[in-house]
Amino acid sequence: MNKIINHDRTAVTVIGLGNMGVALAEAFLKGGHPTTVWNRSANKADGLVAKGAALAATFADAVAASPVVIICLSTYEVMHEQLSPLTDELSGRVLVNLTSGTPDQARNTAIWAAEREVEYLDGAIMAVPQLIGLPETLIFYGGSKTLFEAHAPLLRVFGGNAAYLGDDHGAPLLYDLALLTMLYGSVYGYLHAHAFLSTANISPTAFLPFATNWVNHVIAPSITNPDSARALEERNYATDVSNLNTNKLGLEHIIRASKELDIPAEWLKPLHAIAAQQVAEGYGNDAFERVFEALRKS
Amino acid sequence: MNKIINHDRTAVTVIGLGNMGVALAEAFLKGGHPTTVWNRSANKADGLVAKGAALAATFADAVAASPVVIICLSTYEVMHEQLSPLTDELSGRVLVNLTSGTPDQARNTAIWAAEREVEYLDGAIMAVPQLIGLPETLIFYGGSKTLFEAHAPLLRVFGGNAAYLGDDHGAPLLYDLALLTMLYGSVYGYLHAHAFLSTANISPTAFLPFATNWVNHVIAPSITNPDSARALEERNYATDVSNLNTNKLGLEHIIRASKELDIPAEWLKPLHAIAAQQVAEGYGNDAFERVFEALRKS
Repeated sequence: MNKIINHDRTAVTVIGLGNMGVALAEAFLKGGHPTTVWNRSANKADGLVAKGAALAATFADAVAASPVVIICLSTYEVMHEQLSPLTDELSGRVLVNLTSGTPDQARNTAIWAAEREVEYLDGAIMAVPQLIGLPETLIFYGGSKTLFEAHAPLLRVFGGNAAYLGDDHGAPLLYDLALLTMLYGSVYGYLHAHAFLSTANISPTAFLPFATNWVNHVIAPSITNPDSARALEERNYATDVSNLNTNKLGLEHIIRASKELDIPAEWLKPLHAIAAQQVAEGYGNDAFERVFEALRKS
Repeated sequence: MNKIINHDRTAVTVIGLGNMGVALAEAFLKGGHPTTVWNRSANKADGLVAKGAALAATFADAVAASPVVIICLSTYEVMHEQLSPLTDELSGRVLVNLTSGTPDQARNTAIWAAEREVEYLDGAIMAVPQLIGLPETLIFYGGSKTLFEAHAPLLRVFGGNAAYLGDDHGAPLLYDLALLTMLYGSVYGYLHAHAFLSTANISPTAFLPFATNWVNHVIAPSITNPDSARALEERNYATDVSNLNTNKLGLEHIIRASKELDIPAEWLKPLHAIAAQQVAEGYGNDAFERVFEALRKS
C-alpha cells in the first residue's frame, strides 16, 4: 500500500507524533517524501517506520536530517524545551510550526527564529487528524510570503486549502482561536440547553428537530450574516428586530431560570453585565451586537 | 386594507402592546376577529384602533370583553400586578400567556389560574414580531391538550407552526430558553472571535468567508448531530476525533491568548474548569460532550 520513497522529493522531518503528527508524517510518506520522524516516546513512530519513515535517534538528528522541519508538539513550551539546546543544526532550515498555542507565542517564536537564521512559518490546522491530506482541509499559514509560496506545494500535501494570511506569524493562531471560540460558545450554549431540558426529562433527541431548525434558520444566519459583519466593522448598531432591551431581558430570564433549576449560569453573566451597562447608558434600542464595543480592541 | 370584523369569529383580547403584542393584535384583526386591546400607555393602541380594535378603558374591562385573553407583557411580575386585583372577571375565561419568563413562573401561574377556574395555556413565541402570522412561525404551547386543541385554529393566526409540548405549562419557556441559550452562546463566541481579530486589525468582513465555512461545516453539524444527541441521552462519551484532553488544551489557549490580548475571557472559565476536572478524573480520552455530566440534572 505504501508509495515508494522518491529521493527527488524534498526530504522532510516531522517532530511530535501525537495523532496529528502521525497524520502529517503519513501524508508525507504517501506523497513519496523521504520522511524522518521524532517523538519523545519513540514507540509512537513504529507504524510510520513500518511505512518507510526514518526514526531519528535524537531531536537534534531529526532537525539535521531534512531542509524542512514540521513541528507539531503539544505546546510551545514543550517545543522550546527541545529547540533551545540546538545551535548549528537549525541555521538555514525551514521550520513550519503547527503546534497549537497563542498568537504571541507564535510571534515570539518568529523573533527567536530570525535571531538564529531559521526560516519560519507558523501554521494552524483547522481539522481533525482524519481529515489531513484532503483537498478541502483548511490550514492557515503566516510569515514571509516568499517562503510560503516556495513551500506551498509541499504544504498542500497536508490539506488542499492552505490559506496564507500575511506576514504576521500570529495570524494563523489568531484565526484558529477565533474559530475555536465560536465553536466553544456554540457548544456551551447547546449543553446548557440540554441541561435546561434535562430538568423536565426532555430527551436530546426529542429536542433535536427544534434545535436543528433553530440552528439552520436563526443561529447560523446570525453569525454568518454579511450585514452583521459590516455592522461590526462600521460600528453601526441600528436595528428594527431584536434590540439590547429585549436581549438583556432574555439573558435575565435565562440566568433566573438557571438559578431556579440549579444549572450553573455564571458563564452568561459577563454578557448580561455588558448589555445591562449599555442599556443603562441609553443604548437599549440598539442592536445586541453593540456589546462588541465592550470587547473590541481597535 | 383592513378586513371587516366578523362577529361570528371568536372575540379576543390582547393585553400588552409592545412590538409583539401589536403584531398579535394585528394578526387577529387581519383574521376578522373582534379584538379588544389594552396597554398601560393607551397611546400604543392608536394604530390598532384605527384598524378596528376596541380599546378597553381598564385592564378589568379588557379581560371581561372576550372569552379568550392573550397576554403579552414584559414580565410575569407586571402581569401579576395587573391580574391580582381581578376577581369575577377571570372565571371561565381562557388565558393564553405569551409573556417571557421562566418555566417556574409559568408553572406557578398555571396553579394560580387553576385556583381561579381560569383555563390556562402558556406559550413562547420563537420569532420576532415581523414574522407573526407566517405559516412557518414557531410558537410553543403547554397545558391541557383538550384546551390547546380547542383553540389551535385560533392560535395558528399567530404562526402556522403551533407546537404543543404537553401538559407541563413550563415546557414552552423551557424550550424557549434552551434555544435562546444556544443563540447567546453562539453569538458570544462570534463576538469574542471578532475581539481576537480586532487585535490585529482583521476586519469582520475579511474573516467572514472562513467563519461561514466553519459554521456550516463544523459548528452547525456539531450542535445538530443526531449521534451527539443520542450520546448525551445514553451518556456514552466514546470518541475517536476530538477528546477532552484536546479541548481542555484548546480552552487554555483561548483563555491565555485572551489574557495576552486583553480580552475578557471569564465566560469560558467555568467550561474549562469542568473539562480540567474531568481530565483530572481520568476522562481525558472521552468526548468533549462529557462536560454535560456536570450540567445535567437527570
